[in-house]
Amino acid sequence: MVKVLVLSPHAERYRELIEREGLPGAQLSYACELATALPLAADCEVLFGAPDLLAAILPDCPALQWAQSSWAGITPLLEAGRRDYRLTGVKDIFGAPMTEFVLGWLLALERNIPRRFAAIHWDDSRDGHVAGKTIGIMGTGSIGAHLAQHCQRLGLTTRGLNSNGRAVEGFDQSWATDDRLAFAQDLDYLVALLPHTPGTDGLVDTALLNALAAGAIFINGGRGNAVDMRALLAALASGRLRHAVLDVLPEEPLADGDPLWSVEGLSITSHTAAPTPGQRIVEVFTGNFRRYLAGETLHHEIDFERGY
Amino acid sequence: MVKVLVLSPHAERYRELIEREGLPGAQLSYACELATALPLAADCEVLFGAPDLLAAILPDCPALQWAQSSWAGITPLLEAGRRDYRLTGVKDIFGAPMTEFVLGWLLALERNIPRRFAAIHWDDSRDGHVAGKTIGIMGTGSIGAHLAQHCQRLGLTTRGLNSNGRAVEGFDQSWATDDRLAFAQDLDYLVALLPHTPGTDGLVDTALLNALAAGAIFINGGRGNAVDMRALLAALASGRLRHAVLDVLPEEPLADGDPLWSVEGLSITSHTAAPTPGQRIVEVFTGNFRRYLAGETLHHEIDFERGY
Repeated sequence: MVKVLVLSPHAERYRELIEREGLPGAQLSYACELATALPLAADCEVLFGAPDLLAAILPDCPALQWAQSSWAGITPLLEAGRRDYRLTGVKDIFGAPMTEFVLGWLLALERNIPRRFAAIHWDDSRDGHVAGKTIGIMGTGSIGAHLAQHCQRLGLTTRGLNSNGRAVEGFDQSWATDDRLAFAQDLDYLVALLPHTPGTDGLVDTALLNALAAGAIFINGGRGNAVDMRALLAALASGRLRHAVLDVLPEEPLADGDPLWSVEGLSITSHTAAPTPGQRIVEVFTGNFRRYLAGETLHHEIDFERGY
Repeated sequence: MVKVLVLSPHAERYRELIEREGLPGAQLSYACELATALPLAADCEVLFGAPDLLAAILPDCPALQWAQSSWAGITPLLEAGRRDYRLTGVKDIFGAPMTEFVLGWLLALERNIPRRFAAIHWDDSRDGHVAGKTIGIMGTGSIGAHLAQHCQRLGLTTRGLNSNGRAVEGFDQSWATDDRLAFAQDLDYLVALLPHTPGTDGLVDTALLNALAAGAIFINGGRGNAVDMRALLAALASGRLRHAVLDVLPEEPLADGDPLWSVEGLSITSHTAAPTPGQRIVEVFTGNFRRYLAGETLHHEIDFERGY
């Protein structure tokens, strides 16, 4: 029997889901917080749960072979430094909710839905549309590619930005990070879906924002470190950006009363872009557990060197 | 030379677009209103423009052979009674904007975008999603089928309602109008895209709304006659409907101060769901004009008997 420790604020929910499905070969323990998990760590071979909690318990798991993160953001585990185990993420399952998030905001802004929602006067002025627009997506991994394919189907031109400009399905053209200003030139929409790595710090800066079409929309559904906030606020004030939607911020949660809450043209969505349905995470974990027992390749394994 | 009269409030815009493209074989006149059009009507063979204006000038066009409507709603021409000419619509070009309209509203409502747009507090409560939901679309013509195909790609189950329940691409299943309660059973979303015909009067009634899932969303992007307004208001008040979006109403524009403007859970979008980009309408007209000269079948010809 493989000793598995599930460590997450949602451990009870995961227990329910795992027990419903059954997981032959596993001897499971569950903990919602670090204190209750520590006595279970010594002979634990597999971890499954929230990356910040897993990172905290790493030093107490000498027998660890594999950790399955329940979130896409695995920075705490990368920063923990330990690399003598296999780490897997959950990246594929975020494509659909992120696509709904980005398309929802683009369509809502073009259609003036926030204003029309509670309209009290007839107003048949012409709304905008997404068909025919050009969207640039920073990050062409599984989430970005999923979004790009849906954008193409709605008639948008899609540009991708990744480390070396490699072609990716769903993107009409791709640029390397070094060519990011050419990538951004005259974009109607800019969407950042970048992981938190040193290489993504402040990529959305004044030069990049100035390259966009006047009145562009910016959406950050990745991580807060990608955005130079001062540059963003200037682009909103100048009208270069018509609107920005930040799902993520350098410090979360954003405190009540923070001046960001009242910036004109800025919507903050409280890290809800890609909620993670427990059922789907558990499916990723249990699927990987069966592959682990069978000695097969694990899905979504992280390369510690690259950080994704 | 074929004498063509362009009669529309947007006649000057159409003149610009047609002259840019050129239309060999046509002798064109333009009028923005009925009074200036009447002196040009007597020997007019082809009409292109707004259906209400075309209907008004019909009696003064004895030489009329063909009329191209610039709008999908051709009720005035159907009601005018004259049938000794060919009438064409513009139906295909409304699929994309209607799809953007419906998806925009569904995603915005699921994602709480109207509330999150100007949020001033961190709120990471879980939003909804469209994937996995079931949408029922009343009207399986080109607009409905276009919408249905995009819904399928986003992971929705699609049901269609049409006169005889015939299968249509994009719909997982179709029902005949007579089976509309089975069609509506437990739908998460109901979208009406019906033309204005006697057969569509009040189809969205108490029985239909009661069949939906609790907390369903209703969107009317077709014509106002399809909805029993009293039944709709009752369904909103009872919570059977979480939200309704009416792009169309029996009387338009809705007057300032009308009680409908302040109904909780009701958004009124002032007949903007499918704006008609002049360029695309003119393309439909000029394409049909070339087919007319060549004696070929016209695109989107209306069957006066069926009304679409």
